[in-house]
Amino acid sequence: MTLRIIATGGTFDKHYDEIEGKLGFGHGHLPHVIKRARITIPVQLEQLPFLDSLDMHDADRQRIAASCLRADEKSIVVIHGTDTMKETAEVLGAAQLPKTIVLTGAMIPYEVKNSDALFNFGFACGIAQTLPHGVYIAMNARIFTWDDVRKNRVEGVFEKA
Amino acid sequence: MTLRIIATGGTFDKHYDEIEGKLGFGHGHLPHVIKRARITIPVQLEQLPFLDSLDMHDADRQRIAASCLRADEKSIVVIHGTDTMKETAEVLGAAQLPKTIVLTGAMIPYEVKNSDALFNFGFACGIAQTLPHGVYIAMNARIFTWDDVRKNRVEGVFEKA
Amino acid sequence: MTLRIIATGGTFDKHYDEIEGKLGFGHGHLPHVIKRARITIPVQLEQLPFLDSLDMHDADRQRIAASCLRADEKSIVVIHGTDTMKETAEVLGAAQLPKTIVLTGAMIPYEVKNSDALFNFGFACGIAQTLPHGVYIAMNARIFTWDDVRKNRVEGVFEKA
Amino acid sequence: MTLRIIATGGTFDKHYDEIEGKLGFGHGHLPHVIKRARITIPVQLEQLPFLDSLDMHDADRQRIAASCLRADEKSIVVIHGTDTMKETAEVLGAAQLPKTIVLTGAMIPYEVKNSDALFNFGFACGIAQTLPHGVYIAMNARIFTWDDVRKNRVEGVFEKA
Repeated sequence: MTLRIIATGGTFDKHYDEIEGKLGFGHGHLPHVIKRARITIPVQLEQLPFLDSLDMHDADRQRIAASCLRADEKSIVVIHGTDTMKETAEVLGAAQLPKTIVLTGAMIPYEVKNSDALFNFGFACGIAQTLPHGVYIAMNARIFTWDDVRKNRVEGVFEKA
Repeated sequence: MTLRIIATGGTFDKHYDEIEGKLGFGHGHLPHVIKRARITIPVQLEQLPFLDSLDMHDADRQRIAASCLRADEKSIVVIHGTDTMKETAEVLGAAQLPKTIVLTGAMIPYEVKNSDALFNFGFACGIAQTLPHGVYIAMNARIFTWDDVRKNRVEGVFEKA
Repeated sequence: MTLRIIATGGTFDKHYDEIEGKLGFGHGHLPHVIKRARITIPVQLEQLPFLDSLDMHDADRQRIAASCLRADEKSIVVIHGTDTMKETAEVLGAAQLPKTIVLTGAMIPYEVKNSDALFNFGFACGIAQTLPHGVYIAMNARIFTWDDVRKNRVEGVFEKA
Repeated sequence: MTLRIIATGGTFDKHYDEIEGKLGFGHGHLPHVIKRARITIPVQLEQLPFLDSLDMHDADRQRIAASCLRADEKSIVVIHGTDTMKETAEVLGAAQLPKTIVLTGAMIPYEVKNSDALFNFGFACGIAQTLPHGVYIAMNARIFTWDDVRKNRVEGVFEKA
């Protein structure tokens, strides 16, 4: 079993810039997170340009799809912003790749107190190894298929469409 | 999908007692961890007496098995010390319950910097929902069946027996 | 020795709002911070309206001055945003109160990884008890008098004017 | 103003060893802590052999005194275990050096959740710059002179003798 992690930005990877005084993106937290998780299976990390998912356009989603297509691994975790996670999941779902692709993210940035990022990442790394081929969204211990999910922005949770 | 979490102590739940000046057990981290993970499926937490897994005797393992047997849930995560996780997994495996039981734990206590606890917990919560009935050990992104696993104490990792 | 802590917001007290997806202000971190610091001298916490210091107007600075004036304590720590800390220090300095008033803050919010907030708070709590009456800015282990300091925004440090 | 930090171990610097499964000492947290605090004055770190303060003998205290004597800096912070902090303070006090020496430590290790280490370190760095020459114990926002202090082990706090 080998795992590919594709990082695309989103809340998970936000970083506080002390000069600017705001949250943006830095070098990415995944290299540290993977070490911290002490992952004992082979793992490939691919960091795409980091974007807030509200700033993602179709070309950005196609780039993620291309990475999934190119990947040798059959188990793929995509770290993604929550606001348009569903839209990217639709692009990946339509591609019908013979792989298990799990999109996850965080409601609180990894580097902020009380973050759900590490939990969600572990959750996604588990089901990416065990679910049948397909595209899934996995957040806060709940699994959704790409074609039956929406984000409830008022409550900040994902639910069935 | 409903999840049962059974906490039994182990490194995951160790707590630093500032008066004693050492690591022991407190009220348990799981209530906080479950909130932090923002788990959006129904979840039942059961906290058994907290033990260092080196201090577990057969009666303790039978108590865990009894909890698994009694549980209404088909998906169970057992938080356990790593040193005798395999022995408890064998007791649970021999019971052949029609449930998916995943044992997990941590190399570093939840409350200590750089802990793998939250990752492992998320990982276990994922595969407890997706694997066929059986008993598994899940640590650091790797899944083992209860009858083919051992802890390599020199390197601090689980591997196939 | 009794200590008064006046919280006015600033980077120190920023809180990530997971529904809005941005940093704002919550209930304030100081009640937790004071417990965490296990402060063993009498301490009074006063939380004024939380503001980003760029949003502070003269009325806000006068409110801080009024709090300092009214306080029974001779040692006062003011938690403040760094961008206009100097301007508030000038207002407090001009008031010439017979008290030791120390303004401090943080380059990284308390709840963000690698924050300097707890260090600066401890630093300020120390010198507020030991310096002669006057108004000081205390950041990152360096002490400034209110009339000889400026923030170097390019490097994110305070220096002598 | 230049600061010397002398690290001698103690709870502050305890590190969880994931192979041994217990708290011991690692490479020391101070290099990271000093960076995190973004200290903007010249600072010299000296790491002596790390000891639990219950394991300190007279030779160990003499070594700390020798470091204080040799130091060019007039402001010295000594990171020390709390259990025999008073005994080391007495050795340093008897030496009557023309310097301000502040002993501090932590009730909870730096790397454990809710630690007071960073606060105490900031507190000590402040008063080491402002108090007259002498030897002090500084814990949890309270300052003691070396000859009028004791640790109340039942409550885990320092108090006047």
